[in-house]
Amino acid sequence: MTRLYNDPAAFSDDMLTGFADAHRQYVRKVAGGVVRATPPPPGKTVVIVGGGAGHYPAFCGLVGPGFADGAVVGNVFTSPSAAQVESVARAAATSGGVLLLSGNYTGDTINFDIARNALCADGIETVYLTVTDDVASAPPQEHARRRGVAGGFVVFKVAAAAADGGAPLAEVARVATHANAMTRTIGVAFDGCTLPGDSTPLFTVPAGRMGIGLGIHGEPGVDETAVPTAAELAELLVDRLLDNAPVSGTGRVAVVLNGFGGVKYEELFVVWSSVAVRLRSLGLEVVDPEIGELVTSLDMAGCSLTLSWLDDELEALWSSAADTPAFRRGGAVLESTRASGANQSEHDRAEVVEPVRPTAEPDRYATAVVEALSRVVDTLEDIAPELGRLDAVAGDGDHGRGMTRGAAAALTAAQRAAAVGDNAGATLIAAGDAWAARAGGTSGVLWGAGLAAAGRSLADVSEPNPENWVSAVRVAYEEVRRLGKATPGDKTMLDALAPFVDAVDAELAADSHWQTAWSKASDAAEDAARDTADLRPRVGRARPLAEKSIGTPDPGAVSLAACARAAMPATDSVAK
Amino acid sequence: MTRLYNDPAAFSDDMLTGFADAHRQYVRKVAGGVVRATPPPPGKTVVIVGGGAGHYPAFCGLVGPGFADGAVVGNVFTSPSAAQVESVARAAATSGGVLLLSGNYTGDTINFDIARNALCADGIETVYLTVTDDVASAPPQEHARRRGVAGGFVVFKVAAAAADGGAPLAEVARVATHANAMTRTIGVAFDGCTLPGDSTPLFTVPAGRMGIGLGIHGEPGVDETAVPTAAELAELLVDRLLDNAPVSGTGRVAVVLNGFGGVKYEELFVVWSSVAVRLRSLGLEVVDPEIGELVTSLDMAGCSLTLSWLDDELEALWSSAADTPAFRRGGAVLESTRASGANQSEHDRAEVVEPVRPTAEPDRYATAVVEALSRVVDTLEDIAPELGRLDAVAGDGDHGRGMTRGAAAALTAAQRAAAVGDNAGATLIAAGDAWAARAGGTSGVLWGAGLAAAGRSLADVSEPNPENWVSAVRVAYEEVRRLGKATPGDKTMLDALAPFVDAVDAELAADSHWQTAWSKASDAAEDAARDTADLRPRVGRARPLAEKSIGTPDPGAVSLAACARAAMPATDSVAK
Repeated sequence: MTRLYNDPAAFSDDMLTGFADAHRQYVRKVAGGVVRATPPPPGKTVVIVGGGAGHYPAFCGLVGPGFADGAVVGNVFTSPSAAQVESVARAAATSGGVLLLSGNYTGDTINFDIARNALCADGIETVYLTVTDDVASAPPQEHARRRGVAGGFVVFKVAAAAADGGAPLAEVARVATHANAMTRTIGVAFDGCTLPGDSTPLFTVPAGRMGIGLGIHGEPGVDETAVPTAAELAELLVDRLLDNAPVSGTGRVAVVLNGFGGVKYEELFVVWSSVAVRLRSLGLEVVDPEIGELVTSLDMAGCSLTLSWLDDELEALWSSAADTPAFRRGGAVLESTRASGANQSEHDRAEVVEPVRPTAEPDRYATAVVEALSRVVDTLEDIAPELGRLDAVAGDGDHGRGMTRGAAAALTAAQRAAAVGDNAGATLIAAGDAWAARAGGTSGVLWGAGLAAAGRSLADVSEPNPENWVSAVRVAYEEVRRLGKATPGDKTMLDALAPFVDAVDAELAADSHWQTAWSKASDAAEDAARDTADLRPRVGRARPLAEKSIGTPDPGAVSLAACARAAMPATDSVAK
Repeated sequence: MTRLYNDPAAFSDDMLTGFADAHRQYVRKVAGGVVRATPPPPGKTVVIVGGGAGHYPAFCGLVGPGFADGAVVGNVFTSPSAAQVESVARAAATSGGVLLLSGNYTGDTINFDIARNALCADGIETVYLTVTDDVASAPPQEHARRRGVAGGFVVFKVAAAAADGGAPLAEVARVATHANAMTRTIGVAFDGCTLPGDSTPLFTVPAGRMGIGLGIHGEPGVDETAVPTAAELAELLVDRLLDNAPVSGTGRVAVVLNGFGGVKYEELFVVWSSVAVRLRSLGLEVVDPEIGELVTSLDMAGCSLTLSWLDDELEALWSSAADTPAFRRGGAVLESTRASGANQSEHDRAEVVEPVRPTAEPDRYATAVVEALSRVVDTLEDIAPELGRLDAVAGDGDHGRGMTRGAAAALTAAQRAAAVGDNAGATLIAAGDAWAARAGGTSGVLWGAGLAAAGRSLADVSEPNPENWVSAVRVAYEEVRRLGKATPGDKTMLDALAPFVDAVDAELAADSHWQTAWSKASDAAEDAARDTADLRPRVGRARPLAEKSIGTPDPGAVSLAACARAAMPATDSVAK
């Protein structure tokens, strides 16, 4: 259970506030995460790690001398938005450039990619790499498709040590890539975890059983067995990793025996006493093993073993001193900022929303966008519980909450844009950017990008007619398809969006009135969304428990269809 | 759940083996616990902390520069034996003397007291102090009777810092006493914890409810309420402590927001963001707060808040640098012993049991003691499951296991003593010492002390007659009463032992044959043990959930009665 929170939707932000207060000598809170309290020296390569909340001490607990320069933290088990990644990177960046590191999950890769592009476009040299250490998630020949789990700790540590040692960005990126290639992890779980605000776990493991190869968001495992003794578990973990050892591995390994949250340190030490014996009996030299909670999964009961094969370069970087809130090694001396009282009273939220004050006569088409978004927000608030239920079947039950948060932010941004006289296109761009920034996750970034792309297609159109609106929808569809790398039939929002676009095109070609066309296209989208229940998902690395969704409609398709109907332009908002 | 172990009875030792391997640069395993890897400088006051296992990082995770010199770790939720305390203290001791620190629990106080006396008798100046910070366990005017919980972290830290700073024993003891007087803790729990090997929790809290004031072994709380929000919980914790503030408290406080095991760090940070605001709004200056798992209770879901009011002396000691496996502060430089390879292959158990080889003709009365102990062991093995069930009603279900372990050790020691020609008294002394050393806990030390006292009463008797044997039993009774500070009627083993002694005396006075007397006394003891079901326990600080035991016989009385009957001397082992 996760029991201690105020507003579940604010869990991540509340956590960061308390964390930054408790560890003010190490970190400073910024929009989207934390950066070191003491700025890096000019020209230092900056290493930013990140992902969803729920994995403490990953990611914010690993910021400090010898480790990360900043951490981006999204909502629980949800990718941070591109805007959050960009915000943290900008707060930490020097002229030396930025290395962004995350696990390999669809939401993370899209958002970090967009941030990387934005930073590069702004002259900040940025490289983005993902960690792919989970041997259970893809076969060896598809190493690059594997999920990133606790091995990220090793990759982050090694890259950050190189950066703190003065290596330039390209060198730090090479080291991180090399460390990732040498790192393997396998996890087991005895019981699931519960999201803040939920009363039932995200998944369960039958009593007395142990799932093998489960991901850190409850992604399905590859095997199940009876709960073994500690010694048997040690053998299982070590042997599965050695079966997956890199061909160029040496006889020295960095080792992380990682607790997921619901296992005691004392239990981990019992397991470690057997792991250590087994590794040494196999002739492996254990270098600076870490036993403890390093990459958790809320209160999931289980643990993982990571082996990272070391050469001289990696060993020196792994063993070097570090000093962060959750991890210290060697004699690193804390760069204390206590005397300065930095961060002393920072309990305010990172974002301050000022009231909207009209400064220009609003454009009537921009007003139509605001009104459409307002109807979308109302609709989503109505159906959010149902979306949550659909999402809980095979996901984290957060879809209703994420959509509502994104749409509400989009509406506020649109009101603001319209109030200063922006046209419909600019208003849509502002709405899309805000949606992506506030919602986070995969659906958040895709909705945001889709709206913004639609807005760009209308940027120079002062009086949009039906064809312009429909064309904007098609542009949005293409953008979502491009970024999300899914195709219709993969059980995603595209399965509702594609029939909508086809139907509205066909109706207009058949000379239907545009409102009739939109309405019939909405019918088609709703039918298609319902029919996604029959689809088998393309099981990707970012789809927790995706197989379980067979028989249940895709919540992303359902919400898209509902939003599409709500967004139908009013009669007076379409030019003849 | 606690799922990862090999033999539940070896959990604590297996844990220490893995812990010492993982943290060999900090600690070295010795019989009964760990000491610093690097010996203290000559003349340094040595600080030893200890208690049962199940509280990691208390106690072994807090050994290192700036913190403890050694930690004694008993079985799970069970006091270490006096022999273990003595072993760890001797391994760490210098000419500067030893400060022993534990929480205030009956088993701890008896065992640590005995060890203190033994060390003093051997010329090692030793002071023993207990921590009494739990405001829920006794009213303010009975501060000295309160349980010791997470506030021990502050008291240990402050005392150890004084010792590392060069203070002599008396000064360190004064500082520890002062810190304890200024420290207050209140805990809450949402769910119980499960001992290794058990399938059900030691206690439960109803779903959606929160117990207030529960102890770290599931001792009953003082109140229950619905699970509050994080902000409401912060208010409750702060207000209960301020209601119990020491009258001489300053405006500065050391703060520990402690997770019991089943609460995420992220949840603790959410709570902390409200605790920090509330403390500051009340005008308190928060000094170096610690948020995290510091004194756990296996997988118990809950947390506690500790406030320790600081003056200049305590603040300097609280804020000073420390460097241990589980806690670091400031720029302490690790005294690395990695190069020396210390502890490299120490996977052997601390105790090596060699086979018994007779070297003398055994004394026939000593042989009788061995045979009696052998029957006791058989009896205990038979009834251990039943004893466990009785103990689980209001305790940790460990009584059968503890008794069996103690008796088996006593039997081995008695065989060894008899094999070298010791008489009955010396054999009983050896048996008692071994029982206390191996069983740990309250019943272990009492049984051990009772047998040893009985042995001393027979030390100079070469041919014990019925009166000698019965007198030995009475001596054992008096010793148990003296050490345990209980009286008949308190629902303890005395409730069976007292009627046994009275009945055997009465029967012998009435000229019954001594075997008849013993048999009738055993009947009386069994009846009395059964009748303890009707007794209301004297709710002491060391009686988890004691009130729950009403209606259930006391397992200590039941086991005593059974052992008494089994121990009846054989016909040929009593002199005329």
